[in-house]
Amino acid sequence: MKTVGYAAHDSSANMVPYHFERRDLRDNDVAIEILYSGVCHSDLHTVNGDWGAQTYPLVPGHEIVGVVTSIGSAVSKYKVGDQVAVGCMVDSCQGCDQCHNHEEQFCRNESTPTYGAPDRITGEITQGGYSKHIVVREEFVLSVPEGMELSKTAPILCAGITTYSPLRTWGVKEGSRVGVIGLGGLGHMAVKLAVAMGAEVTVISRSNKKEADAKALGAKGILASSDASAMQAAANSLDLIIDTVPSKHDINVYAPLLDVDGTLVIVGQVGPLEEPNTWPLIGGRRRIAGSLIGGIKETQEVLDFCAKHKLYPECEMIKMDQINEAFERMAKGDMAHRIVIDMTSLDV
Amino acid sequence: MKTVGYAAHDSSANMVPYHFERRDLRDNDVAIEILYSGVCHSDLHTVNGDWGAQTYPLVPGHEIVGVVTSIGSAVSKYKVGDQVAVGCMVDSCQGCDQCHNHEEQFCRNESTPTYGAPDRITGEITQGGYSKHIVVREEFVLSVPEGMELSKTAPILCAGITTYSPLRTWGVKEGSRVGVIGLGGLGHMAVKLAVAMGAEVTVISRSNKKEADAKALGAKGILASSDASAMQAAANSLDLIIDTVPSKHDINVYAPLLDVDGTLVIVGQVGPLEEPNTWPLIGGRRRIAGSLIGGIKETQEVLDFCAKHKLYPECEMIKMDQINEAFERMAKGDMAHRIVIDMTSLDV
Repeated sequence: MKTVGYAAHDSSANMVPYHFERRDLRDNDVAIEILYSGVCHSDLHTVNGDWGAQTYPLVPGHEIVGVVTSIGSAVSKYKVGDQVAVGCMVDSCQGCDQCHNHEEQFCRNESTPTYGAPDRITGEITQGGYSKHIVVREEFVLSVPEGMELSKTAPILCAGITTYSPLRTWGVKEGSRVGVIGLGGLGHMAVKLAVAMGAEVTVISRSNKKEADAKALGAKGILASSDASAMQAAANSLDLIIDTVPSKHDINVYAPLLDVDGTLVIVGQVGPLEEPNTWPLIGGRRRIAGSLIGGIKETQEVLDFCAKHKLYPECEMIKMDQINEAFERMAKGDMAHRIVIDMTSLDV
Repeated sequence: MKTVGYAAHDSSANMVPYHFERRDLRDNDVAIEILYSGVCHSDLHTVNGDWGAQTYPLVPGHEIVGVVTSIGSAVSKYKVGDQVAVGCMVDSCQGCDQCHNHEEQFCRNESTPTYGAPDRITGEITQGGYSKHIVVREEFVLSVPEGMELSKTAPILCAGITTYSPLRTWGVKEGSRVGVIGLGGLGHMAVKLAVAMGAEVTVISRSNKKEADAKALGAKGILASSDASAMQAAANSLDLIIDTVPSKHDINVYAPLLDVDGTLVIVGQVGPLEEPNTWPLIGGRRRIAGSLIGGIKETQEVLDFCAKHKLYPECEMIKMDQINEAFERMAKGDMAHRIVIDMTSLDV
């Protein structure tokens, strides 16, 4: 199938129109016309080569919402016209304990990312959601519940599941005390999801500037990490912290906010942290952890959860040809919460 | 009560005989004649002032085994002649949620260490186990089960509980895959305790030099952290790592050994770690945690556990006047697993 997308042709991350082929349908494949594609900071990191050398041209995008246009002969879960979604993975071995346990993101034989990785059968490099069409095996296609606002759904596929999964793993429920560091794409979803689970949510930010924003998202308040006395007064006050800071930072600032047995979960920064002091860990049996997106079953769960709670990311819609400007703004942090590309703005 | 011990008079950690008074018995106090006192690396750190300024003279020692010589009028748990023990704490507020939850080490109002801290009633500085006698409120006195070898029991009060508590907190049981980094006082107890719980234990050490020692303690084998290919082959192979390294180190070396959802627990180093990379945490939902001794109930549990399993620390017995030499050897790492002072070697 011929399609068109926007690709980077080198690590300068300058995105230009790119005509390419999607594979012919295998028996278990679903072909999707993409309607919306979320823009994730990791798209920029990947095309920039920040996380390793890439094969170009590269079409990023792993927050994908669209409609089924055709199905392979063995597909049973989807039919033409279904509203569907695709997230950060498009395949895994399906045979290991992690895959059997619905944790394909930890597949023992490595899951296949939606873009920039070799297809498990042909070895061709996968291409992502900044395109008009995609072909994905049905096990990695999600169902978008009836009635969801499609234009606001895409970021749930990465920003949503990345924050939902640790909230579930660490058992957030009615009355849990949750801190969220940062209010970007991940952070604002963490706030909304934790609030919907019944948690009492505190946003932790450098200053109080985003207080109104935090409260509008449902947080009970904001804690300024630059305010030493406020930070001290908040010691031991949180059960779980979702740390969405996307760059190297000092967790010693945040760890004392955790109560005994509390956990700080890193979801934003891939790479080194500043030197942590062990005392806050030892002196309260506190934990530092990481979390990686979520499995397919849990990704369906977060879509269903958001549909049920009418919970959506805060999205700014752009046209496909505004992507370079969007990348520039994202690199500078000059954006609200999440940018979504209206893929109908791109003609085949 | 007049008694004698060995005290440091300044941060040089030169220990000399010191005659001093133990308090008159309060209603809930137990007076103990100390028979054995374990030597912990933290004794040296504390008298050296490594962990903060101290009040001198200072009598260290928080691995204490002895016999009850008299009791206060309200004491109900102990009688004269009972075999008892005292660990790292001698008091706490007894009123907070942590104390009620048998986690006095995390007392909201700070537990009182066995030495070097103000008594909650008089403000006098507590003095530890390198002495002939000690007076402790009964809630912080442990019972030494009948039949235990008293001369080998003292290190259970710190090295034992410090490793037993995380093994229990993280649910080690038959078949658990446990790694232990380091084979000193803490490490060798971690191995013995985990083996007694039914775990498959791997010792992680710089080289294979201590393989025979590790196996004698019950470990299935040793993994040399300097052997890159062995380390790589051991990736994802452990559920829990007890990290007893007592100095700043690089956990990036060890984190990939953990399986998905595994935890590395730091019990040896108080202070900074080298910069951790978040990828091993994120890519396997792994966790880094700390753990601090254990509560009084759990300390009684480890004593009972050791009695039941006839499990003892490997002890080297010294006389009280050999303590300075022992400190020098400890600072150089020139010792087997744990040194215990025969307190009968000190005349009043």
